[in-house]
Amino acid sequence: MQQFQLFIDGKWIDTNETLDVLDKYSQEVYARVAKAGEESVDEAITSASKAFEREKLSPFERYQILLKASQLISDQKEELAMIITREAGKPLKQARAEIDRSSQTFLVAAEEAKRIHGEGVPVEAAPGSENRMAFTIKVPVGVVGAISPFNFPLNLVSHKVAPALAAGNAVVLKPASKTPITALKLAEILDQAGLPKGLLQVVVGSGSTVGNQMMKDQRIALYSFTGSAKVGLKLKQETGLNRLILELGNNSPVIVDKEADVELAAKTIAAQSFAFAGQVCISVQRIYVHEEVQEIFLEKLKEYMADLKIGDPTDPETDVGPMIAEDEAERAEEWIQEAVEKGANIFIGGEREGALLKPTILTDVKPEMRVVCEEIFAPVASVIPFSDIKQCITEMNQSDYGLQGGIFTQNIDTAYYAAKHVEVGGFMINDGSQYRVDLMPYGGVKDSGNGKEGPKYSIEEMTEERLIVMNLKV
Amino acid sequence: MQQFQLFIDGKWIDTNETLDVLDKYSQEVYARVAKAGEESVDEAITSASKAFEREKLSPFERYQILLKASQLISDQKEELAMIITREAGKPLKQARAEIDRSSQTFLVAAEEAKRIHGEGVPVEAAPGSENRMAFTIKVPVGVVGAISPFNFPLNLVSHKVAPALAAGNAVVLKPASKTPITALKLAEILDQAGLPKGLLQVVVGSGSTVGNQMMKDQRIALYSFTGSAKVGLKLKQETGLNRLILELGNNSPVIVDKEADVELAAKTIAAQSFAFAGQVCISVQRIYVHEEVQEIFLEKLKEYMADLKIGDPTDPETDVGPMIAEDEAERAEEWIQEAVEKGANIFIGGEREGALLKPTILTDVKPEMRVVCEEIFAPVASVIPFSDIKQCITEMNQSDYGLQGGIFTQNIDTAYYAAKHVEVGGFMINDGSQYRVDLMPYGGVKDSGNGKEGPKYSIEEMTEERLIVMNLKV
Amino acid sequence: MQQFQLFIDGKWIDTNETLDVLDKYSQEVYARVAKAGEESVDEAITSASKAFEREKLSPFERYQILLKASQLISDQKEELAMIITREAGKPLKQARAEIDRSSQTFLVAAEEAKRIHGEGVPVEAAPGSENRMAFTIKVPVGVVGAISPFNFPLNLVSHKVAPALAAGNAVVLKPASKTPITALKLAEILDQAGLPKGLLQVVVGSGSTVGNQMMKDQRIALYSFTGSAKVGLKLKQETGLNRLILELGNNSPVIVDKEADVELAAKTIAAQSFAFAGQVCISVQRIYVHEEVQEIFLEKLKEYMADLKIGDPTDPETDVGPMIAEDEAERAEEWIQEAVEKGANIFIGGEREGALLKPTILTDVKPEMRVVCEEIFAPVASVIPFSDIKQCITEMNQSDYGLQGGIFTQNIDTAYYAAKHVEVGGFMINDGSQYRVDLMPYGGVKDSGNGKEGPKYSIEEMTEERLIVMNLKV
Amino acid sequence: MQQFQLFIDGKWIDTNETLDVLDKYSQEVYARVAKAGEESVDEAITSASKAFEREKLSPFERYQILLKASQLISDQKEELAMIITREAGKPLKQARAEIDRSSQTFLVAAEEAKRIHGEGVPVEAAPGSENRMAFTIKVPVGVVGAISPFNFPLNLVSHKVAPALAAGNAVVLKPASKTPITALKLAEILDQAGLPKGLLQVVVGSGSTVGNQMMKDQRIALYSFTGSAKVGLKLKQETGLNRLILELGNNSPVIVDKEADVELAAKTIAAQSFAFAGQVCISVQRIYVHEEVQEIFLEKLKEYMADLKIGDPTDPETDVGPMIAEDEAERAEEWIQEAVEKGANIFIGGEREGALLKPTILTDVKPEMRVVCEEIFAPVASVIPFSDIKQCITEMNQSDYGLQGGIFTQNIDTAYYAAKHVEVGGFMINDGSQYRVDLMPYGGVKDSGNGKEGPKYSIEEMTEERLIVMNLKV
Repeated sequence: MQQFQLFIDGKWIDTNETLDVLDKYSQEVYARVAKAGEESVDEAITSASKAFEREKLSPFERYQILLKASQLISDQKEELAMIITREAGKPLKQARAEIDRSSQTFLVAAEEAKRIHGEGVPVEAAPGSENRMAFTIKVPVGVVGAISPFNFPLNLVSHKVAPALAAGNAVVLKPASKTPITALKLAEILDQAGLPKGLLQVVVGSGSTVGNQMMKDQRIALYSFTGSAKVGLKLKQETGLNRLILELGNNSPVIVDKEADVELAAKTIAAQSFAFAGQVCISVQRIYVHEEVQEIFLEKLKEYMADLKIGDPTDPETDVGPMIAEDEAERAEEWIQEAVEKGANIFIGGEREGALLKPTILTDVKPEMRVVCEEIFAPVASVIPFSDIKQCITEMNQSDYGLQGGIFTQNIDTAYYAAKHVEVGGFMINDGSQYRVDLMPYGGVKDSGNGKEGPKYSIEEMTEERLIVMNLKV
Repeated sequence: MQQFQLFIDGKWIDTNETLDVLDKYSQEVYARVAKAGEESVDEAITSASKAFEREKLSPFERYQILLKASQLISDQKEELAMIITREAGKPLKQARAEIDRSSQTFLVAAEEAKRIHGEGVPVEAAPGSENRMAFTIKVPVGVVGAISPFNFPLNLVSHKVAPALAAGNAVVLKPASKTPITALKLAEILDQAGLPKGLLQVVVGSGSTVGNQMMKDQRIALYSFTGSAKVGLKLKQETGLNRLILELGNNSPVIVDKEADVELAAKTIAAQSFAFAGQVCISVQRIYVHEEVQEIFLEKLKEYMADLKIGDPTDPETDVGPMIAEDEAERAEEWIQEAVEKGANIFIGGEREGALLKPTILTDVKPEMRVVCEEIFAPVASVIPFSDIKQCITEMNQSDYGLQGGIFTQNIDTAYYAAKHVEVGGFMINDGSQYRVDLMPYGGVKDSGNGKEGPKYSIEEMTEERLIVMNLKV
Repeated sequence: MQQFQLFIDGKWIDTNETLDVLDKYSQEVYARVAKAGEESVDEAITSASKAFEREKLSPFERYQILLKASQLISDQKEELAMIITREAGKPLKQARAEIDRSSQTFLVAAEEAKRIHGEGVPVEAAPGSENRMAFTIKVPVGVVGAISPFNFPLNLVSHKVAPALAAGNAVVLKPASKTPITALKLAEILDQAGLPKGLLQVVVGSGSTVGNQMMKDQRIALYSFTGSAKVGLKLKQETGLNRLILELGNNSPVIVDKEADVELAAKTIAAQSFAFAGQVCISVQRIYVHEEVQEIFLEKLKEYMADLKIGDPTDPETDVGPMIAEDEAERAEEWIQEAVEKGANIFIGGEREGALLKPTILTDVKPEMRVVCEEIFAPVASVIPFSDIKQCITEMNQSDYGLQGGIFTQNIDTAYYAAKHVEVGGFMINDGSQYRVDLMPYGGVKDSGNGKEGPKYSIEEMTEERLIVMNLKV
Repeated sequence: MQQFQLFIDGKWIDTNETLDVLDKYSQEVYARVAKAGEESVDEAITSASKAFEREKLSPFERYQILLKASQLISDQKEELAMIITREAGKPLKQARAEIDRSSQTFLVAAEEAKRIHGEGVPVEAAPGSENRMAFTIKVPVGVVGAISPFNFPLNLVSHKVAPALAAGNAVVLKPASKTPITALKLAEILDQAGLPKGLLQVVVGSGSTVGNQMMKDQRIALYSFTGSAKVGLKLKQETGLNRLILELGNNSPVIVDKEADVELAAKTIAAQSFAFAGQVCISVQRIYVHEEVQEIFLEKLKEYMADLKIGDPTDPETDVGPMIAEDEAERAEEWIQEAVEKGANIFIGGEREGALLKPTILTDVKPEMRVVCEEIFAPVASVIPFSDIKQCITEMNQSDYGLQGGIFTQNIDTAYYAAKHVEVGGFMINDGSQYRVDLMPYGGVKDSGNGKEGPKYSIEEMTEERLIVMNLKV
């Protein structure tokens, strides 16, 4: 069995305790990782603080390191994809796509490292300031504490680490304890790519120990977190006056309007709702379908869903594999049962086998059912009919969340009415809520969080803008 | 009869010659204006050059002067509107709208004077430049030579003068010789508003004398011209290495798609094609109508056009008044005749009485007819059927011009296919080509010119960006 | 005595309790204000929520209302200045300057209301997204909870209210309980200016009741707070997943380098350290003077400080008046005593009479004395010698705060070394830390807070950016 | 001897005529190139027009091709450098530096291809436009006609070709007839990199034939030219309403202030004035030295210039090689003689041997001497004393040119006084005028041209911004 160590100050470190990482499909222990104790976490933060002071990489050096990392990620695509498939249970073809995206994330961050710049500020336009001249510069914040989730073990780590380094910061990364190996592999890659020691630490452990300790440490200037709204709130409330980037949950809505291309809608939704067993922040969860097209939509949805291949994630044809843990699958099943008891129908799916929950479509749901109003994070979506688009949107907006949403309609007025009124960070016209490319600004409103990801945008968040004003004599 | 003088170096100047300004409806001489000779033009440019060196207004002072001018324009709305109505023959309600817009143009320029700023340039990201820091500033170009047309005697003058002054430049303005009085009134207003002498000169005379002299004078750093492509080209070819903003002609196309709201299309087009007798750079001239909706569109267009009130421009109800000169109306009539001889039908209108040409719709036109391929600048539009949107757009793009265009369609894919492929500077979805608000970027491609108007954009053109790089020791 | 009421839902409201407002110089009760109970606060938030849904002002309407308010503020300058002088004890000439600045703040916010815009996002550059087109829009966040301090009773309220309204939000404002009257006057002005009812509420009361209740109310989407780091932290930790703008304290440092224009330095610092009795977030508190120029600097500082007129704030010649409360003056005196006991010398000042503390300069201080390491918020500054600029800056950066700082030096390399290394949000070359014009980005790093003020920047913070992506067929 | 062909429509083409390319040091024929006749030029433009319509590369595809080209340039560094050394006579170490820079230029252009985007336009802020939404997109202009000079046979070609392709345009390139081979090599590289045929053509011939024909062809949408002001003016005056980017000459000024680091000034200027025999647009030509430091400056300049190695450009130690042609060296010698006759002194240098002119410093020059007021484009600079910085700058600004300039001074006020008043496109503090990195905006004012180079900036110029406005029903 493979053994993994922590990565602190450029060194691979063992600790007293270890943590088992399961193969999520076979549920067998597949690797063993050193678990960070209090001392290791402290050492990691110390190392980051010192490295931040010591290593002042030029923008071009950061570019070179991140570019090299991007290339190494591509080079090791198959190996990395298989690690993700095993530790996350993510179907291989989705794992491969994740590697490609991570390589892009590093590439874009590398390029953005060379584009960090401030702007002129026309203070001379204020009465009495005629002789002044001002502009801003962007400076790194210092130590970034990154806490990442299991669902994209490489790309969501990349979205934290790559921009943080591009901006000139040092990083202490705590990956999800269920999927730490990919993150450790990334540390290895960055080490190979020439990252000076101390600019990245990877500490593995639970949120309640490692995470909590990180929250208390004032040397961390900024926390970048992706995870549940509950933990996001805790992070906000238990840290000091530090900065925060919070990428939290969603129960993503999509509208299928009466003027929709129903074929396109059904096909896209079938493909997007169940990728990685619905364990994606922007998986389609609430499908609002105009009653005039509901019947035909459901029919077509069924057809497209019949094509989904379910099972062993290492099979390159598989579309839907296991959930991250059997208890998570049980929880989702429970929510389904609760819905059914309250009147919902299972239109498709519903069966569970261990951690494997079949892609499920519910109908006749009610707004207060957990499958609708909370984030299910499972391969389960509900079809909700509507007759009036305005009422539909008012209802959609009842959600505490607001990450991404979408609409299928050919009508430009309907499309933009929705775009203007649906309370989300990103809205897709003729696409599902799950659309994301790594260069775009990504982030939610309301309980879905605060701050944008996408290398250019994260770098904005991970730098401070400093105004410099010159008082000139002539 | 009113007598007007030139405005040079803050003084009102008489010359040996005068120029008669006709009331364009009655065709009677309505005012007499001093005509600039060679000496006056030279003096005007000298005065501007000196004032540019001498008067370094702070951005806030420029703001205050332009704001005051904006207010004075509003205060004198009725008087100014009546001047425009008389010297341009523009219907009073359109003249009033022009005054409101000019006031906005000055207001926005005033505000933009306080927002001129450069940006940071990350030279430190280039290998070997790690110790450098760079940013840009925007500096005024110097003397702006403004040459303006008759169709918006106040607002198109404002679009040159207001941003030029906002940017810190001095101006020599040559208004259209047919409509000089409004421009002189504006000089009076700016004088009242506290503009230091020499920052604005108004010289009246023909293009072939005053205009030509201005072209030869190397002290003018930038020419801002609105007028015909022919004169624009001359300006480009006969000036030195000066900067140019050229706002030239168009034969504006609008598409009425089979999925259009035909009612909206007909109503908008009826209103937009004939305002100021079609003498607007972005008047609808070519109406491409899908054959499936052609009949109903023509019917509705006829209905809406029947509502247009034609005649005396001083009547506040009038929609369409005389053209700028009888020979212009004769020219347009000739083009119509030519078209008819080659097979076109006059669907509506066609009659002429002096300078008054009735709003005219032609059908059965061919691409090579002048009513289609040249800029008619008269209340004449042609309806051209199409069956395939792609072919239609290819045909539309044959034009040498590319200022603005539009499409009426409810279909989002059709709308954006057109937006992406029609070769214009501005494209309107569910609106006519004539949409313009003064804050937006306005300007054409191909023979429609170069450079954008709209105060924010003109200020960009009327300033130079200077890069400042510091080579720092540490 | 004047009586004041709360302003909720466009109505002036009495409550069961009142709060006395003292004249800070005479220490007599000068006005009485209704005190908000739990019910009033709830009503205020309800009213704001409803108004936000109901009143969708166009950007131009917002512009008009804020512009009108700006003008009314100017019109009522003398009355407003006298209110500030009495309720805050701020010297009249500084109060007048504050009115002028507030009028500018509203003006700039009005103008920025017309400039809110998103940007294009090149998603088509991502592999597989070739047919997509994307851009962002900015939407208001909803209800803004504004909590403002006593030191700028009008302008710091303006910096919250004006951009919040410019962005399209509704506001619940809790002004400092020591200086509520100016804020209520501003509500009156906005009411006169045509603000629809419900878009602004003013609730008066203590932080521990009204403030706490506001923190718990999830209907407030964003809190904008100016005040102490301690309360700022509480606000962060006791609110939900809402947005925060925190403008907190500072112990502002200024360097006087050996190559400084010492005359300029002494004059500026004398003027800036004691305005409003040093109760300004960016008052100069730590003066790092190169040992080569220390003697001459101290001499000149003494000369300039001798010119400061101290006493009755209603006297238009007064430079330094009372502190906000006698106990605050006592606290400052205590800190001075503590310093003296530990070895500091009082070079100038130190005497206290009631709330009036004389402008004080300390020498021989140590980094750990509270007069140095905490925010004194009193007319007290310390002169600290240094011999090496790099060490000096390292020492300066020990502070938990980082709002603004400055340097006096003629040497460009020294100036920019400092600008690059001093950890602050704004750095002034040849100016004191106290430089601020209202159009510039203003805000700190570290414990000085998060988020920028200045209307353009606050509007950024008070809107959400929504990405709209179109998936086009062709 | 090597034979080269034209590159048209992806094919290598022979013609009836050939053109000899000399080795500029040995003056022997070193290669023979097919010379484009009228037919070839026409074919090239036709091919570009068709390819522009046919080949719609996605931004990512453009990125990939340009990135590959960047890598191939690096891979072939030694070969390309030797070609430049031979056909341009450029010293090998400078030729190598040029290859590195070209690789960067292609790299940055590749990256910028993925960043082309428009912006939101707040038309909804105009009264009456509340229901509208607007944004801009950037579209390629079409066929770019690139005309490039001999002094950077690869990098100045790269600055035209790389951004043109990045923007989605097709290119017809006419390289300098003295240095065509590098350009042809670049075509080979782009072909290898996967550029679809027709997107780049290289036609070799003289300006008076090939250049003139290109000017007359209306299918070219934009001309990008680097060369003399004389030819630039011709290009402006003899083309139609096409767009122009003109990068013309300069007689670059640098100030050595009394507070300068004279050592740094002398060292930098010695290195920068004579690189590639002064045949660089931004070579230092006019050195304004404060009289207080003139003596020491001249002394140190002499010392540093003594280190320059002169002679065979293929020797990797050589700093100064031959000029591009013997007659050019003769012309420079003549200008020196003329100056000497009018009173100038040759402080250093002045000797000529064939095309090799020794680095020359003149003193006692007068403003009207050609060595001062015209662009000498030879290894010749003049030292001009001054006593008052303001007068000095006024004198400097008499020049018709305004590309780049610089100042050496430690005084921040002097530095920024100069930066604000010297009329140039780029101003260097504590650096010579010759500073350029390829990512920065580069371009002059006055007769030095129009439009900025640097991939990001050229892409701006080589695209058109199209405004799209939606008129929405709700």
